[in-house]
Formats: sequence, structure tokens, C-alpha cells
Amino acid sequence: MNGLQLNEQGRLKHFLGIEGLPRDLLVEILDVATSFFNVNQKTVKKVPLLRGKTIANLFFEPSTRTRTTFELAAKRLSADVLNFNISASSTSKGETLVDMLRNLEAMHCDMFVVRHSEGGAALFMAQHVVPSIHIINAGDGQHEHPTQAMLDVYTIREYKGNFSALRVAIVGDILHSRVARSEIHALKTLGAAEVRVIAPKTLLPRHIESLGVKTFNNLRQGLTDVDVVIMLRLQRERMQSALLPSEHEYYQYYGLTESILEHTHPDAIVMHPGPINRGVEIASSVADGARSVILPQVSNGIAIRMAVMAMTLGAHSEYKEG
Amino acid sequence: MNGLQLNEQGRLKHFLGIEGLPRDLLVEILDVATSFFNVNQKTVKKVPLLRGKTIANLFFEPSTRTRTTFELAAKRLSADVLNFNISASSTSKGETLVDMLRNLEAMHCDMFVVRHSEGGAALFMAQHVVPSIHIINAGDGQHEHPTQAMLDVYTIREYKGNFSALRVAIVGDILHSRVARSEIHALKTLGAAEVRVIAPKTLLPRHIESLGVKTFNNLRQGLTDVDVVIMLRLQRERMQSALLPSEHEYYQYYGLTESILEHTHPDAIVMHPGPINRGVEIASSVADGARSVILPQVSNGIAIRMAVMAMTLGAHSEYKEG
Amino acid sequence: MNGLQLNEQGRLKHFLGIEGLPRDLLVEILDVATSFFNVNQKTVKKVPLLRGKTIANLFFEPSTRTRTTFELAAKRLSADVLNFNISASSTSKGETLVDMLRNLEAMHCDMFVVRHSEGGAALFMAQHVVPSIHIINAGDGQHEHPTQAMLDVYTIREYKGNFSALRVAIVGDILHSRVARSEIHALKTLGAAEVRVIAPKTLLPRHIESLGVKTFNNLRQGLTDVDVVIMLRLQRERMQSALLPSEHEYYQYYGLTESILEHTHPDAIVMHPGPINRGVEIASSVADGARSVILPQVSNGIAIRMAVMAMTLGAHSEYKEG
Repeated sequence: MNGLQLNEQGRLKHFLGIEGLPRDLLVEILDVATSFFNVNQKTVKKVPLLRGKTIANLFFEPSTRTRTTFELAAKRLSADVLNFNISASSTSKGETLVDMLRNLEAMHCDMFVVRHSEGGAALFMAQHVVPSIHIINAGDGQHEHPTQAMLDVYTIREYKGNFSALRVAIVGDILHSRVARSEIHALKTLGAAEVRVIAPKTLLPRHIESLGVKTFNNLRQGLTDVDVVIMLRLQRERMQSALLPSEHEYYQYYGLTESILEHTHPDAIVMHPGPINRGVEIASSVADGARSVILPQVSNGIAIRMAVMAMTLGAHSEYKEG
Repeated sequence: MNGLQLNEQGRLKHFLGIEGLPRDLLVEILDVATSFFNVNQKTVKKVPLLRGKTIANLFFEPSTRTRTTFELAAKRLSADVLNFNISASSTSKGETLVDMLRNLEAMHCDMFVVRHSEGGAALFMAQHVVPSIHIINAGDGQHEHPTQAMLDVYTIREYKGNFSALRVAIVGDILHSRVARSEIHALKTLGAAEVRVIAPKTLLPRHIESLGVKTFNNLRQGLTDVDVVIMLRLQRERMQSALLPSEHEYYQYYGLTESILEHTHPDAIVMHPGPINRGVEIASSVADGARSVILPQVSNGIAIRMAVMAMTLGAHSEYKEG
Repeated sequence: MNGLQLNEQGRLKHFLGIEGLPRDLLVEILDVATSFFNVNQKTVKKVPLLRGKTIANLFFEPSTRTRTTFELAAKRLSADVLNFNISASSTSKGETLVDMLRNLEAMHCDMFVVRHSEGGAALFMAQHVVPSIHIINAGDGQHEHPTQAMLDVYTIREYKGNFSALRVAIVGDILHSRVARSEIHALKTLGAAEVRVIAPKTLLPRHIESLGVKTFNNLRQGLTDVDVVIMLRLQRERMQSALLPSEHEYYQYYGLTESILEHTHPDAIVMHPGPINRGVEIASSVADGARSVILPQVSNGIAIRMAVMAMTLGAHSEYKEG
């Protein structure tokens, strides 16, 4: 994948997944995002970096929330944005995906932000587009969701400074989570001391230990002394497919409550990619509590997406100089 | 509500309803709108006042027409606009309204334009957002629709100059109309000599006289010598709920025809918030006739919305100076 | 129609159809498009020609693809764009089309880009709008699709230079094709030596020869020695209405394969308005082959739409001077 993600100078060309990306590049993304974070704090939240660029949001799987963050990031960089809800679009007329890509290329688009229910969709596109197009993966099946992972490590760095001494626990449906997969790669690459995954056995992928993580089935044991807790959203469909008992029982064993949180390090922060299911995977008092950094994650997400868009389009250095 | 609408200096912070707003503020909105009206007449219909601001249209009740006027107003002020059709959005994933607001705040939005089927929704949001967010009510249940009322009084001032000698009649489904409620407050505050409401008994709220209006069940009597006729749109659902006989019978008794219009003052103007039901509440010849100011209302609506957006965001004075 | 399309100085005011437009004007559109083509090649794909103009896409018939090209063209000219999917809009509340137009006029829109399933819809609008509004026909029923025809002749001129010696064949469902109708008018006006239409008898309009074209029912005969092949998209609905046998049989007789292509001039180019039905009207090897200019057509479409938008709004000369 990295043969595709990086150009010959080792610069980011597409952003498809965290796996295999060098540590320096991840740190560069975080640093660039820091500079963009300030743009979002200003009265005029706009820089002309991507003026005259055309960014197409290709959402084969609906997600107003994620699409909005990319749309905002693009607009704050002054790019023109086209939104495609693909099920309603020309693929319904029998057009192939590749024909659709060729057409958008011919319209001189510069970037496709892709969300798709199939793992590998973003990679497939990167393999098939002309060199002038840049692909950003906004979540592909159960594979990766790299901008989410980057905003998570951005948030961790903001609150904890350094990764080398950190114990991080990811809790929930690891098996189906592209977010967890990307986070594990990001945390390991950035040198987190320990990454734990906590889930019922039915929701833990086999051989997950090969990624360098420790597995736990017991929430209390898994959370003991961690510095960061990342809760995953529980997809309610999992109940129906018999992978899980009731929501109520899930909450009993894996819900993050104030009392269970006491087993973590006293300064531990609580994260969640959103949208949260209150009373399913997390108690409201924890989600809204003093340790929660769930809303800063959202703010950081805009900065991270601006950074990745500017970097893949090679427009970032312009900004630094300007 | 006004504790919320006005800041400590008495400047407009949110725009939730007309009720209780001081006369001077209403006049200021009208005056600011006059300056923006000219922007819409120019070759380049755009001023950079809200450049780098992010305005989210949160429409929990669909209305292409109203959303479009707010979108246009925002774009002509150079703001970035995000449109949300909320039923299709993440609330369908079970996210609470407050969580949605928190997320949009975290994305550093500056303003929410809200339409909702529940009265009080805009007020609820104003109570729950951080201080940096400004709320504009684009219609909440049967409560208020303040920008509609302001464009109506703007239009009346344009054609009649002064409110103090004016008799104004509002005709139709007063009971369910947020427009009527806002108009009554605006007209009374601006000192209209007489405000009449004309409706069948089933469509008149009890105790409406407490707002300082005169009630009529007979159209001819109610229209006698009035200077302004404001027709309301008849919601066809009312027929089905047995509040009304047939459309045909409604038109017989409450439809505005040329002959019934002769009972008004000879210079009376005819208004309607649109979209009009031709042959239901108004005759085509009246809607399209010489006294109709229905289309100027639409033009004025853009100017009013620009004014309210700029004022709540504190950007208006900049423009006056510039 | 041309009384409406051209103003008193013979300049383009609306763009409703090719029929009857003078040759000089078509050539001017092509020349203006050439200058805009370069905008789409630049790093900053944007010129400020239509800044502060409001363009409304009124799509009564859904077409993400065509709407996108108009939206992109408008944005690259710096106009503000409003998208209306009309079935979901206020006409569903019983508003008449003319009332909708009057409202958009009152909002000071400058241009309506119209797609409609009824032939003559764009003309009807041009007859009913105020003089400040310009209409562009983005396809009306089986009548015309003039920007598609202009991008086609633009592409032909790009590859063949001159029309006077050219033999052009249009292949497929001529009967129902607004594209074919507009192309025939454009090619005849620009002086193409020969325009052929090739179709089964059930898909050829009666009296089509009166437009100055030669008709063929046999693909091989029709393609012999032509310089340009324009394939039309086969609407699958035609099968169901018994106008055609199976897709398979259609492909046997009218599909463009590599072997049948050998009957054309050796330098012949292959065109298609898209989206293509691979294996229905065209073989994949031809669509993707060396003679195919299907993707250049898409690029040219943006330039043509920019040209027509700028010309009807009278903004083009500004650009040439600048």
C-alpha cells in the first residue's frame, strides 16, 4: 500500500491507511495539523491554500457526520467541494466504478474523499486513478479509517505530550472496527508503551496479538492503570447477528462507567469516535465528565483533515512559508 | 426569551422570536436590511462580511424554499454554508440533539439556522449552545417565524412608510400559524394602529385578543378599510382533521377575491408568505394583481436574513463603516 | 425560438437549442470554450468572471452527472450555485412552475440551468422569466440538449480541425434522443459534409431526412468511410416497450465492436455522451481504445458550459480583455 501512498520523495500522495507509514510522516501530519488548528480558532476561518482545487466526496456509504468534517476542512482551505451520495448517482444507471472515476478525472477533479462499505475500496481507487488525483480514505469496510486514527493520536499528544510511556486501551467491537485497526497501527508506530484491546471473545479478531497488542476480555483488568481509554461505538446490528447478548448485558460487562473508570490512571483521558450510544458503551456521566476529550477529538478532526488534504495536494509547504 | 436573544449591551445575539423585542431593535433590523437590499441589486451580489464564518442550516422539517433564502443570504455575505436535512442525518443513528449541537460546536460553526416542527426548539438550542454560536429561528412549530414577520413589516414600511396609522388584517388559519403569531408581535411593537385577525372560529386561538388584536369571523367586515391584507397559506391537512369544510367552501367564505378586496382601503396592499394556493385562499387575479406585493416580500426576505445574520454575528457595523 | 435565444445585438441571451442558431455564433461558443479549457488545466482552476452571480440548477429529472458538470463550470467561474431537485421541492406542495420561477427571480437569481422530462420546458421558462434571468437548457424531453451537442462539435473540431470534409455517423436510438437532434443541427450548421443516422427502423423518426441527414438501418454500410462515430446510450426501457429485441440482439446488429469499426476511415474517432453501457451499444475494447475520445468529451463539456454561462451573462468579453 505504501508504494501507492508515498511518492518517490517519500511525500504523502494518497492517504489510504496508517499501516506501514513511517513514524516521521505521522509526526509531520500531527505537526501540520497543529498549524491548521489555529485557522479554526480565528475570526476568519479560511486560508486560500486550495483555492481553485476541486474535491469530490464520494460516499458509497452514508455518513453525514464524516462527510461534513471533510467538507468543512475543504472549504476552510478554500477548495470547491462536490458531494456525491453514490447510491443515488449514476452507478444506479449501471455505470462501472472505474467509468465513474474516469469521468471525474476528466472533469479535472484533484481529490476524491472515499467512504465505502468494502475494505480496500480506497486502495482500488488509488490504483486506478491518474497521477493528478489524490485519494483520501474516509473509512473502507473493516479495513482502515486513517483520519480518525490521526485525530485520535493528535488528541492523545495534546493531552499526554509523549507516547513512549503511555498505556492505551481500546474497548469494544474490535473485530468489525476499522477505527481500532487504524488506531493500533498509529499507536504502535508512534511508540506507545502498551496498546490493549478489550472485548468479548466474539468481538476480538483472531491473531490480533500479531499487531503487538495485549488482549483482555475483562474490562476492569484491561483498564487497570491505562492513561488513555478509547471506547468504540457499538453497532446495534451486532446484537441481531447473535454476536452479542442484549445491550443491557453488554453495558454490564463492557460499558464505561464512573466506577470502572477508577481502575485507570487518575489522569486517564476518555475518547470515543462518536456518535456515542449513551448507556450502551458509555455512561452519560463519563461521556460528559471531566476526563472526556470526545469533543476536542471533533475539533481536532477538522485540523487533521485539513492537514492531510493540504499535504497530499502538496500545498502545505506554501502555507508554512506564507 | 429576551434574556437569551440580547446580550448585555442589548445587541441581538440570537433571533428566536419577535415577542418582547424592543421597538428600536426591530427598526434597526429594518434599517440594516435596507442597506443589504442594495447588495442584491448589484452586478456582484456579494459582500465579504461573513467570510470564513460557517453557517449550518439545521432543517428538522423540510423546506427547500426557506432554506434556499437563508442559504442565499449566507452566500451573499460570503459565509460557508452546511445544509443538514436532519431526518437523514446522524440523529437517525440515535444521537441526541444535544450531542449533535456539541459536535457542530466542536467543528467551530458560528451559526445554526433552525427549522423544527416543535415550538421552542430554537429556544432550546439557544439555551444549550456555547456562547460563540448564534441561533436563528427559521420556524418552530406553531410558535414563531421571526424572519418572515420582519420581511413582512419591511415590506409594509416600504409601501406604507409609517405604521402608526395602519390597519392590518391577517386572514386564515391563525390557530396553527407561527407566521401570524410573529407578525402580530412585530406589528404591535412597531405601533400599527389596528391589527385584525380574520378566521373561522375553529381556526382562531382562544384569548388571541390578549395580544391586542381584534377578531373577525366575517371576511368582508374584517377587511373593511384595512391598509394591508396578509393572507396565510391554508394547510390542506386541516381539511382532513375536520377543522374545515371543503377547500371550495373555505374559498367561498375566506378566499381573497377581487370583489371582496373592494372593501379594503383603495390603496391596500396584499401579502402572502408563500407558497400560495391559487383558488384556495387567494384568487389568481389578486395574487398576480396590481396590489399584490407577494414577490417583493421574497426579495425583501433575502435582505432581512442577511441583516439578521450579520447583526447576530456582530459583523454589521463593519459593513456600515466600510 | 431564436427570437428568444438572441438579444437585439444578436448576442446569446438564453441557450435553449441549436436549431436555427447562426454558424458564427456556434463558432464563437467554440472559441470562447477554448479559452476556458485552459482554466481547467491550471493549478488554480478558477476565474472571478461570475463572482456574485447566482446560478440555480433546476433539475426536474435527476441527473447527478450533468448537474455536476454545470455545478463545476459555475464554481470555476466563481458563481454561487443553488441545486434544486424539484420533485423533492415546493412543487410537491402544489406550487405552480411559474410561481416557482417568480420566487427565484425575486431572490435575484441570474441563471436557471434546467433539465426536464418535457420537451419545450426550457423554452417555456425563457418565455416566462424576467429579462434579467438567463436560461440554459440541460436537456428537455426528446427535444434538445444543446450543451452536449456543442461539446461534441468542440471535440470533433479538436481532433479533425475542419467540418467541411467530414462524414459523421450517429448510431442508436435516434427517435428518443435529444442529443442526436441537437448534434444534427450543430453539424449541419457548421457545414459537415455528411451526417448519417444509423438505427433500427423502430428507433428512427419519420421524416428525419428533412434535417439533411442520410438514414441507414445497417451499421456496416452506415459506418463505411466515416470520420466520426457518435454512439448513443441505449435506454434499457426501450426493450420493455417492445421497440427493441434483447440487449444481446441489439449488440449483434448495432453494437460498436473493433471489427465493425474497421469499416470507418482509419483515423475515425469514437464518441459517446456517456454513461456508456459496455457490451450493449459499445464494446469495452472500443470505448477504452485508441480512437475513443469519450473522456476528452467530458473535459470539453466543462469548458463549453463555462463558455455558454459566461456568454449568456455577458461576462465573457471581460475575460478576453482581462
